[in-house]
Amino acid sequence: MTRYEALADEIARSIRDGVLRQGERLPSVREACSRRGLSPSTVFQAYYLLEARGLVRARPRSGYYVHARPQARPPEPDTSRPAEDSTEVAISERIFEILESVGDRDVAPLGSAFPGPALFPMQRLRQAMSTYLRRQDPHDAAEGLSGGHPRLRRQIALRYLLGGINLAPEDIVVTNGALEALNLCLQAATRPGDAVVVESPTFYGALQALERLGLKAVEVPTHPRLGIDLDALERALARHAPKACWLMTQFQNPLGSLMPDDHKRALVELLARHDIPLIEDDVYGELYFGAERPVPAKAYDTRGLVLSCSSFSKCLAPGYRIGWAIPGRYARTVRRLKLMTTLGASNPAQGALAEYLEQGGYDRHLRGLRETLAAQRERLTDAVARHFPAGTRITRPEGGFFLWVEMPAGADALALHRQALARGISVAPGPIFSAGGQFGNALRLNYGHPWDDRLEQAVHTLGGLAAGAPA
Amino acid sequence: MTRYEALADEIARSIRDGVLRQGERLPSVREACSRRGLSPSTVFQAYYLLEARGLVRARPRSGYYVHARPQARPPEPDTSRPAEDSTEVAISERIFEILESVGDRDVAPLGSAFPGPALFPMQRLRQAMSTYLRRQDPHDAAEGLSGGHPRLRRQIALRYLLGGINLAPEDIVVTNGALEALNLCLQAATRPGDAVVVESPTFYGALQALERLGLKAVEVPTHPRLGIDLDALERALARHAPKACWLMTQFQNPLGSLMPDDHKRALVELLARHDIPLIEDDVYGELYFGAERPVPAKAYDTRGLVLSCSSFSKCLAPGYRIGWAIPGRYARTVRRLKLMTTLGASNPAQGALAEYLEQGGYDRHLRGLRETLAAQRERLTDAVARHFPAGTRITRPEGGFFLWVEMPAGADALALHRQALARGISVAPGPIFSAGGQFGNALRLNYGHPWDDRLEQAVHTLGGLAAGAPA
Repeated sequence: MTRYEALADEIARSIRDGVLRQGERLPSVREACSRRGLSPSTVFQAYYLLEARGLVRARPRSGYYVHARPQARPPEPDTSRPAEDSTEVAISERIFEILESVGDRDVAPLGSAFPGPALFPMQRLRQAMSTYLRRQDPHDAAEGLSGGHPRLRRQIALRYLLGGINLAPEDIVVTNGALEALNLCLQAATRPGDAVVVESPTFYGALQALERLGLKAVEVPTHPRLGIDLDALERALARHAPKACWLMTQFQNPLGSLMPDDHKRALVELLARHDIPLIEDDVYGELYFGAERPVPAKAYDTRGLVLSCSSFSKCLAPGYRIGWAIPGRYARTVRRLKLMTTLGASNPAQGALAEYLEQGGYDRHLRGLRETLAAQRERLTDAVARHFPAGTRITRPEGGFFLWVEMPAGADALALHRQALARGISVAPGPIFSAGGQFGNALRLNYGHPWDDRLEQAVHTLGGLAAGAPA
Repeated sequence: MTRYEALADEIARSIRDGVLRQGERLPSVREACSRRGLSPSTVFQAYYLLEARGLVRARPRSGYYVHARPQARPPEPDTSRPAEDSTEVAISERIFEILESVGDRDVAPLGSAFPGPALFPMQRLRQAMSTYLRRQDPHDAAEGLSGGHPRLRRQIALRYLLGGINLAPEDIVVTNGALEALNLCLQAATRPGDAVVVESPTFYGALQALERLGLKAVEVPTHPRLGIDLDALERALARHAPKACWLMTQFQNPLGSLMPDDHKRALVELLARHDIPLIEDDVYGELYFGAERPVPAKAYDTRGLVLSCSSFSKCLAPGYRIGWAIPGRYARTVRRLKLMTTLGASNPAQGALAEYLEQGGYDRHLRGLRETLAAQRERLTDAVARHFPAGTRITRPEGGFFLWVEMPAGADALALHRQALARGISVAPGPIFSAGGQFGNALRLNYGHPWDDRLEQAVHTLGGLAAGAPA
């Protein structure tokens, strides 16, 4: 952590703890410098960062003032309570309809699954692509079809090493995005008719994969900040004898929950006792807002039973469609399934990403992206607090770019989705995150796009619709 | 057809018909010019082309001489005779082992599934990539995830229009190579347990797809030049009530067979009467050696029952992994399945190919590629005729880059594959092309790589192994 980040965190804590209160002025830059022995630029950067996070506001020719919301935030949702029975999944047609309808680029993208395109380093990637292709040996063009391009696998292994996870490049299978990685891992670990544990709510892609492979969903209660409830999971294992779990341990989509480290460890140990593989969707792991990068459950895996999947689609290059699986003891099966279905991932995209990662600068990009997302989370949280009706509950995501909004009982998210779309606003309605059709009153909203008046107005409109009084 | 191509074809016919015989001298360039009123450069180009095809040889300071083989070519294989029962497919592990073993770039690539990398326009593609990325609007980066990039779909539709097939861009689903397209189409048209018709021998990728989806294979007799036997197909339909056919109507892998137009029409009509979808693998359609581009069975489809699939992997850009499906009445299901499994194909690869196609020059590249492959077919055919034991049979492919070699009864292709690999030579052994384990004495050899002494020597070694006398 840099000095300015440390200073910003310290002030943020003071605001959170009520030491510094709404409307109070921060020490001037000169005061802060002399009191702490810091350079003016360090103090300036800290104040900018606090402003980006929405915690302070500059007043021209006056200084920085605390902007923490005086009103209480809407409360958090409760831990979910899905049905205890397993569910045949038959939801992919509805999901498809909704996803097709929200793809239009002219719509206010609160239902989007990606951050705004301007947040990605397009020019640096273009240069990396150009360098890669210029130096490419013709034989290299078909390289990387089995398992992935060696240079890219090495770079991915190096990133895991930063988190203390030791991998050989051969442990990694490069795929067409994380979605392919997850689908291959699920197929490797199951047979049609098996039961599979998912969170409640869960990423709709997991439900689609279960349906496609003829698997039954066991939805397990999940806390909006701490992730899946381990006691409930243990009961579900006893009751349903599932053959796999598909979980997002870090910044879960849609809740944004982050399992604490000791929960992750306990999860891995619990599943190891039952010899059940964990398919870990870790695509948001790099997008943490705290001071330290959290580690995936894979870090606690000693038996090759955690099949961890991730990608560059949420952090670096959405259109490149490059992801990967670390399938542990299922590696050979996953490689074989990939060879049978798509052969391999696109060579230019793999090469350009390898070149980009080798050049350095990814961490700098990620730092900027995290700050931007954290600030946009504040804006969306504020807007929902202001515009949605009383009785609304919202999550406190510490990473990723989704806010989960539970409207008062009786609100109809699917109807709201249609009404909003007619007004040029997309949302992701709650029922697509449940095999059992729960969350009829919930929405997933995206804060990955630069905040502007159109989004503010869109949230206003949604709030009106939620209150039953169309704006 | 250009003048020089017409002249070359005329001379080639004379050689084939015995009008011009082995060792005879062609008319000098001057004679030919004055006799036919052609320019010297036209005659030179025609002679070069004939030399490239292996039909004539230049002797320094003397002229061009007919080089047609005096010895008869080995005969063609017979129409195949697979078992009439349907077969549970359980072969993908063997296929995987063999494919993993032949991927090494230091091996003489007679078992390869691709043409040599030097045959592709790497530099032009690189420039197209650079142009595409330089002009890219950030919003475009995630474009094309549903269905494919609009510019690329338009270019693909234009190519079909050249063949008289009228498609809207929305009829096309861009995929991660043809293999994904075929797999998605097969899944869209079937349910586990269904029977599916394939050729005998058939592309191993079809067998892997059947196995993965729990489908039974109905292998139907196939002629090495004319493709699937339609009478046998009709009997198989009556007997097995299959739910789909997966066929390669053009330059079938591994036989190289090309169904005549009236066969294709009869095939489409027969399947329409039974309401059975045809999954058409058309990845070699552009690689014809005749004067006219043949059309896929899709051209005769009036009911949306032909799901035609192809790619750029064999003709233009193997590592890009860009293919497509034209799924007819299954389009929505295929789009949905793609969204569920890989979301979409890589955006830079799609954009670069669109840019390349828009710039023009693809047809010129294809003409050169076809001439090269046709000439290399002659070299491999010659070499097999010289080095393989008596009793060997070989196909006469009029397109693509595979020769199918049936060795005398008793030869063991799987043993030969292992022995050859130990000597640095890859082959594709016959049994991977059959669900029922047929073709134990056959090999698929690749002539897509520039012919050189190493390949000549490799065929010599294979011939020795085939004769039971390792070289």
